[in-house]
Amino acid sequence: MGMFLKNAWYAAAWDHEVTTDKPLARTILNEPLVLFRDTSGRIAALEDRCCHRHLPLSKGKVIGDILQCGYHGLEFDTLGVCVRVPGQTRVPPGSRIRSWPVLERFQFIWVWMGDADKADESLLPNWQVMEDSEWAVVKGDPPFRIPCHYELFNDNLLDLSHLAYVHINNIGTSTVPDFPIVTTKTENTVRMIRWIMDSPPAPLYARFGGFVDNIDRWQYAEAMVPSYNTVRVGCLPAGCGAQPGDHPDDFAVVSGGRDAQGFEFYNLNAITPETENTTWYFYAHSRNFAQDDPNMDEEFSRELRGAFQEDVDILAAQQMNIDRHAHNPKEWIDIRVDGPGLALRRMVADAIASES
Amino acid sequence: MGMFLKNAWYAAAWDHEVTTDKPLARTILNEPLVLFRDTSGRIAALEDRCCHRHLPLSKGKVIGDILQCGYHGLEFDTLGVCVRVPGQTRVPPGSRIRSWPVLERFQFIWVWMGDADKADESLLPNWQVMEDSEWAVVKGDPPFRIPCHYELFNDNLLDLSHLAYVHINNIGTSTVPDFPIVTTKTENTVRMIRWIMDSPPAPLYARFGGFVDNIDRWQYAEAMVPSYNTVRVGCLPAGCGAQPGDHPDDFAVVSGGRDAQGFEFYNLNAITPETENTTWYFYAHSRNFAQDDPNMDEEFSRELRGAFQEDVDILAAQQMNIDRHAHNPKEWIDIRVDGPGLALRRMVADAIASES
Amino acid sequence: MGMFLKNAWYAAAWDHEVTTDKPLARTILNEPLVLFRDTSGRIAALEDRCCHRHLPLSKGKVIGDILQCGYHGLEFDTLGVCVRVPGQTRVPPGSRIRSWPVLERFQFIWVWMGDADKADESLLPNWQVMEDSEWAVVKGDPPFRIPCHYELFNDNLLDLSHLAYVHINNIGTSTVPDFPIVTTKTENTVRMIRWIMDSPPAPLYARFGGFVDNIDRWQYAEAMVPSYNTVRVGCLPAGCGAQPGDHPDDFAVVSGGRDAQGFEFYNLNAITPETENTTWYFYAHSRNFAQDDPNMDEEFSRELRGAFQEDVDILAAQQMNIDRHAHNPKEWIDIRVDGPGLALRRMVADAIASES
Repeated sequence: MGMFLKNAWYAAAWDHEVTTDKPLARTILNEPLVLFRDTSGRIAALEDRCCHRHLPLSKGKVIGDILQCGYHGLEFDTLGVCVRVPGQTRVPPGSRIRSWPVLERFQFIWVWMGDADKADESLLPNWQVMEDSEWAVVKGDPPFRIPCHYELFNDNLLDLSHLAYVHINNIGTSTVPDFPIVTTKTENTVRMIRWIMDSPPAPLYARFGGFVDNIDRWQYAEAMVPSYNTVRVGCLPAGCGAQPGDHPDDFAVVSGGRDAQGFEFYNLNAITPETENTTWYFYAHSRNFAQDDPNMDEEFSRELRGAFQEDVDILAAQQMNIDRHAHNPKEWIDIRVDGPGLALRRMVADAIASES
Repeated sequence: MGMFLKNAWYAAAWDHEVTTDKPLARTILNEPLVLFRDTSGRIAALEDRCCHRHLPLSKGKVIGDILQCGYHGLEFDTLGVCVRVPGQTRVPPGSRIRSWPVLERFQFIWVWMGDADKADESLLPNWQVMEDSEWAVVKGDPPFRIPCHYELFNDNLLDLSHLAYVHINNIGTSTVPDFPIVTTKTENTVRMIRWIMDSPPAPLYARFGGFVDNIDRWQYAEAMVPSYNTVRVGCLPAGCGAQPGDHPDDFAVVSGGRDAQGFEFYNLNAITPETENTTWYFYAHSRNFAQDDPNMDEEFSRELRGAFQEDVDILAAQQMNIDRHAHNPKEWIDIRVDGPGLALRRMVADAIASES
Repeated sequence: MGMFLKNAWYAAAWDHEVTTDKPLARTILNEPLVLFRDTSGRIAALEDRCCHRHLPLSKGKVIGDILQCGYHGLEFDTLGVCVRVPGQTRVPPGSRIRSWPVLERFQFIWVWMGDADKADESLLPNWQVMEDSEWAVVKGDPPFRIPCHYELFNDNLLDLSHLAYVHINNIGTSTVPDFPIVTTKTENTVRMIRWIMDSPPAPLYARFGGFVDNIDRWQYAEAMVPSYNTVRVGCLPAGCGAQPGDHPDDFAVVSGGRDAQGFEFYNLNAITPETENTTWYFYAHSRNFAQDDPNMDEEFSRELRGAFQEDVDILAAQQMNIDRHAHNPKEWIDIRVDGPGLALRRMVADAIASES
């Protein structure tokens, strides 16, 4: 599990985390990065290391368009080139550090961790809903830092049967696993769809949607290589027009549910490996109800963060247990709901293999 | 020091720690175990790992006679067999985890860490005194978790000369090392006996036994392979009939001392390796005075726990020092009082060698 | 970076840290030592390990002229010879632990970590100023323990251009790196001299020296193999007679500055490796102003400790970054101010090489 896909965008930070005041340190794919924003608003992602005596540049200062080392004052531009050494006029040859391509999109800062000339904006997930005024967006901030391999989280997000056990007090109901899933794939995406018909609402659905009687509920989860996951879930009162569909195009149909007073929200999930055994978890949620109510922003955000904390606890325990059984490795037994997660693991493994 | 005797009972928990409500996680001999009690009161010791995605089962729930995984709801019986997978009717072949033989005896839960068909109840220490109504028993709860190899603790309990240095403020007196010991052995036990005649009482003897003048004091310690230790200590006022004896059978004679108003208590010690460098320490004490006085239960328990904490501190420092000198290993110098501990080490080493 | 010079004195403690009451544990060059003072005031530096069962002797007691083990009471003299084993009359052959030569000088306790017969007092730095009644001395106590290799600190003390970035709020000014340095060497010393003429005073110079207008400031740093560093800094109002000189002998000339009302202080720095990646930092400062003012002692000490804490933070971050880039080692780029530090590194490397 030690290798990563290099030629991909990884969420490195929220847009608001990277400022013109103070550099931000963040490690991604084992690379310690420093991020800063220049006077034009452009963002740089550099190696977090002065080429002189190795102090992290994140200990320094952003001064205009350069990043100044906090030890001896060497100055680096947004491409990582040292442009000034105090006390001398000549900059020694080779005085540069690595930089990576950066995109600012959908309120995220994305860093391309592979060859710069392969950086391809079309490989981002399509999260226009982050910028759609008809949806209310709340960013999950700060990102969680989870002591697990990132693929454990990929598995988690493609298997929503765990809501019946991990999230029974908020977004889960005990009947979830009783409803089958349909899995579809493209070259670099895996979609899992489950319809939960004529069932009681989960506690948070009841509370925020006002549902008392049974509902028809949908779970659409679409994962993209290497580790973005769009979860779209919602419901209508049972028998009020929601129709189970299992073809990906039905995703659009469900969208019409909002006009029909469907209760619906997205979870947008960007899973970024920090190291082999630690993972950054960025998420936002976007809802189609009470869009202008800041109290709802706060309550919804707090409750979902509580639910995601439950995942974090599970994932950390799972990794810890994998590690402590490492002296005696065991096969995993697969069950039916693992299908989508296993499909994504194969796609990621194939993509990594094709890089080498 | 990295190997353990497998075919032996190890104290894994107190009886009251294992309930029908909540599973208990405890690592023994490097094996992470989960313990739970079914509706009939029977105790199971299973591998603490779901065979599906490796979550510790101790994060799950006991529901009737099964243990349910907290991630996807797989259910395991007391033998470690998966009997249900939510969302499907068929349980995949091979869905089982390891289980170990368990005994509940003398208020301890004992787990047999080797081959199940060699589990042999006669290899338990005989701690009937835990169930003898004429003795007042207090369990040392919770068990200490000590950062040391378990054999350092075996050494400690067979050499009570350390009372003069480690426990001088409670159960020790400076004269202890001046009195010689007699060591006797059977195939799997080592007994150390010391009589300390006509000497001042240790502080706790004075306080709890009311002794002002000199006493005749006995120390009987019997260790059993791999790591149970029965310490029986007591005294009479000097010259009131206590007679030094060094034959094991004299143990029984001393028992009569109680009728003669001897002041006496047992420390029953079960030393359980958690890992090569961490150790669980379960102990109980059983006394023949103030048996029905709950204040004495509390005071005696608090004072002895304080004394044992002194051992814990010594053992942790000793292990830390062994580790930090590991780059430069040193011979140990042996002295006279090490005889019983060295004898037990040889027995344990022979037992381990005979397993392979 | 894993090797140390053995045949050298290392500062192990302050004189007041080693008492006749309680042994002091301190690890130097990976060797855990225990220090104590006997009834004649003489100091012993022994291996911190009982030869019997490896308990650190620093857990024991100083009793008169011996150190008693806290576990079984073995007694060691100041040469590390075991002179008594409780419970027996004979001390087993070979019952001794290692001892090292010790000097008490300039308020420091110095330990010679190599061959005892090569111990040579002339290899100490000459810090008579610690005992000169015309200078007010304050010891930096307790020593800092820094998570870095000691040579990073050697570099730091020979390159005072970092004052412009690390210490800009106390002893630095932004113009420091604009003034060139002159480097001179002897067989085992490196001296760096910088004169900063007609420049604004640093904040602490202004505060403690009462300087408002520009000053002429000098920085003399002399490092000695392996890791002692004498820094002598001071100033006069600009144009009041201070004359830049770059020959080592000028050091003496500057000394006369005091008579001319120069404001001056020494930092005496003893850098002692604890392990490859941790370092003890002992320092004292000695000033030629307000010598009899205890308030100045306190204020000056607090402010300089604050400045040195800034170094500690930089050095810890630097080492952490070197370690985390270890999977991908990088060349260091050298700049002009590195000259003295690189010269000292070469001297230390040569001295280590000549030992093997």
